[in-house]
Amino acid sequence: MLDPIDDVYKTRLSSVRALLIGPDIDALLIGSPANRRWISGFTGSAGWLLITKEIAMLATDFRYWDQAGQEAPLFDLYKITDQLSREWDKFIGQSFVAYLGVESQHLSVKNFNDIDEATDVRLIPLKETVEPLREVKNSIELDEIKRAAEITDEVMDLAPGFIKPGVSERELAWKLERELRERGAHSLAFSIIVASGTNGAMAHHHPGERKFGPGDSIIIDMGARVNDYNSDLTRTFLISGESNDEFMRLYNLVLDAQQAALTGIRAGITGKAADQLARSKIEEGGYGPEFGHSLGHGIGLEVHENPRLSSKGKPKSLLSGMVVTVEPGIYISDWGGIRIEDLVVINDSGVENLSRCAKKPLISA
Amino acid sequence: MLDPIDDVYKTRLSSVRALLIGPDIDALLIGSPANRRWISGFTGSAGWLLITKEIAMLATDFRYWDQAGQEAPLFDLYKITDQLSREWDKFIGQSFVAYLGVESQHLSVKNFNDIDEATDVRLIPLKETVEPLREVKNSIELDEIKRAAEITDEVMDLAPGFIKPGVSERELAWKLERELRERGAHSLAFSIIVASGTNGAMAHHHPGERKFGPGDSIIIDMGARVNDYNSDLTRTFLISGESNDEFMRLYNLVLDAQQAALTGIRAGITGKAADQLARSKIEEGGYGPEFGHSLGHGIGLEVHENPRLSSKGKPKSLLSGMVVTVEPGIYISDWGGIRIEDLVVINDSGVENLSRCAKKPLISA
Repeated sequence: MLDPIDDVYKTRLSSVRALLIGPDIDALLIGSPANRRWISGFTGSAGWLLITKEIAMLATDFRYWDQAGQEAPLFDLYKITDQLSREWDKFIGQSFVAYLGVESQHLSVKNFNDIDEATDVRLIPLKETVEPLREVKNSIELDEIKRAAEITDEVMDLAPGFIKPGVSERELAWKLERELRERGAHSLAFSIIVASGTNGAMAHHHPGERKFGPGDSIIIDMGARVNDYNSDLTRTFLISGESNDEFMRLYNLVLDAQQAALTGIRAGITGKAADQLARSKIEEGGYGPEFGHSLGHGIGLEVHENPRLSSKGKPKSLLSGMVVTVEPGIYISDWGGIRIEDLVVINDSGVENLSRCAKKPLISA
Repeated sequence: MLDPIDDVYKTRLSSVRALLIGPDIDALLIGSPANRRWISGFTGSAGWLLITKEIAMLATDFRYWDQAGQEAPLFDLYKITDQLSREWDKFIGQSFVAYLGVESQHLSVKNFNDIDEATDVRLIPLKETVEPLREVKNSIELDEIKRAAEITDEVMDLAPGFIKPGVSERELAWKLERELRERGAHSLAFSIIVASGTNGAMAHHHPGERKFGPGDSIIIDMGARVNDYNSDLTRTFLISGESNDEFMRLYNLVLDAQQAALTGIRAGITGKAADQLARSKIEEGGYGPEFGHSLGHGIGLEVHENPRLSSKGKPKSLLSGMVVTVEPGIYISDWGGIRIEDLVVINDSGVENLSRCAKKPLISA
């Protein structure tokens, strides 16, 4: 019986080769970490895949030589011994390539020019290569993302117990990180965001020395990484103050907007329509301009990947098996912010919500 | 009295403008995180600096708007509201630029082509912009690096107490990370390397489930990040087994090689000569081919930056105030590896060694 993991990589290599169509492109050069990992299984931080109909090669250096052999058994290895800039001809020249597709969003101008000078191949910049193939997740990928989401949920449910007047953003971020790691996250998906009080108006605030006090709202945005797959979750809390009314009014508006999206999203609607489900609620409430980002994004080997749930860009239909965030927010300078984010798997009849932790914002001082 | 931090950024902006010489290049576009941070102080993960003799602009989006204003007061802000690919003309067009230097090692082929299509400016790919200016550190930078090195030293001295038969690589890596963070590291400089037994032959091994046993060698390579500045430190340990002779013979060879470099490095010698100080010792011992990487690298806002202590590339003289690693190693497939790494500041008479933790490899089982 074939190892199912090996099967996955054989299927992926075939699907990559199916991108090599006719005489237009007869090879692909892949250097971006997520695409490289997805196609080959290789997890090192430096390496290049060269793929033709006949050849599958992985170039890497001394540091990753043994690891590359273990992780990417379908690939022949090419050992970079000097600087790669002097070896492009040897690496690519061996493969009898005429038209080489390159990742235009990831390949540097220097590497492009170096390859162009060192070889006779014609370089074809491609905005995407396997990114569209990565959008729908297989069951192994879904299991990794679900495990990452479970850990994140468990830790978010501990957060109200950690939030007390006098605790700083940085202290809270570290407590949460510790819990994520000790429950099995291999690393964070991204640096944890803890934004309190007026800092909440900065959607990507770094946790700082600001200490919490009564009446403070606190946005926590965090995720776990398990076997290179990520989760993403946001909750907003309030330490009860003299009046919680203004906060609760906006909180409930964001929650209603999220619920409208969670109810309406299903395979077949576009990312733009998904965004509009939530945005129209917030616009009706009078806070359209304060919802300054898109509703959500795909997640997998990268924290932000396709599809986009956004009013911008070309409208594309969502497909069953995509994993996306649903995260409306309202941000007001000199006041603060509110964001509520769940992680969902899209299916034909709706969504499976992977985020099961509570949405109970109030914490007594 | 001027704030000394503001002074630093004014001086840096002047030194960047001094790179704009005559009619060849009248502006620079900087998008790489370390260069952007060094020039402007802005620590967000997305943004572009456009610098001419008269203009200093920082383009960033909604997420970082308030933060950018606080961190980069010398820069006028440009708010990216749509996708930047549609705004290059507006952002760069305002500045009356004719010849725009771009970072060829960092700018993507897509962004290069987008700018080229959207504007009338002539793009000049530059392999380096401010990287040479970042090599010699000022006193504020040295203080950050020293603090990061102190924390790392403290934690490495705890490692022998954590290493016991039955403990896994992953468990040890997490214990070390916890200690680094709780002693003040804002984050890790890089994922901690714990490579035990035969895994030690992989210079950049990921910590895995392998459990330590008697006779195992264990390489620990780790660093702390404090205010965006990094440290880097490696020690190799041995859990005493039936015979420690082979390990100790190679350990002492690596230690001698390191000592030769630490004694011989000073301002004025080349990075290549520095590498040779250690390499010649290991070659004399008969293990030249097993020392498969260069002796060391500069460190600062990036873990690996110029200068390089390497036999490859153009020989360049080391200068007083540079901070480099000194890290010879020996790696043998199916046996394991040994690496000893210190962090030093170069001065005119020698080096100041920032790494003060012990080099006592033996741990009783």
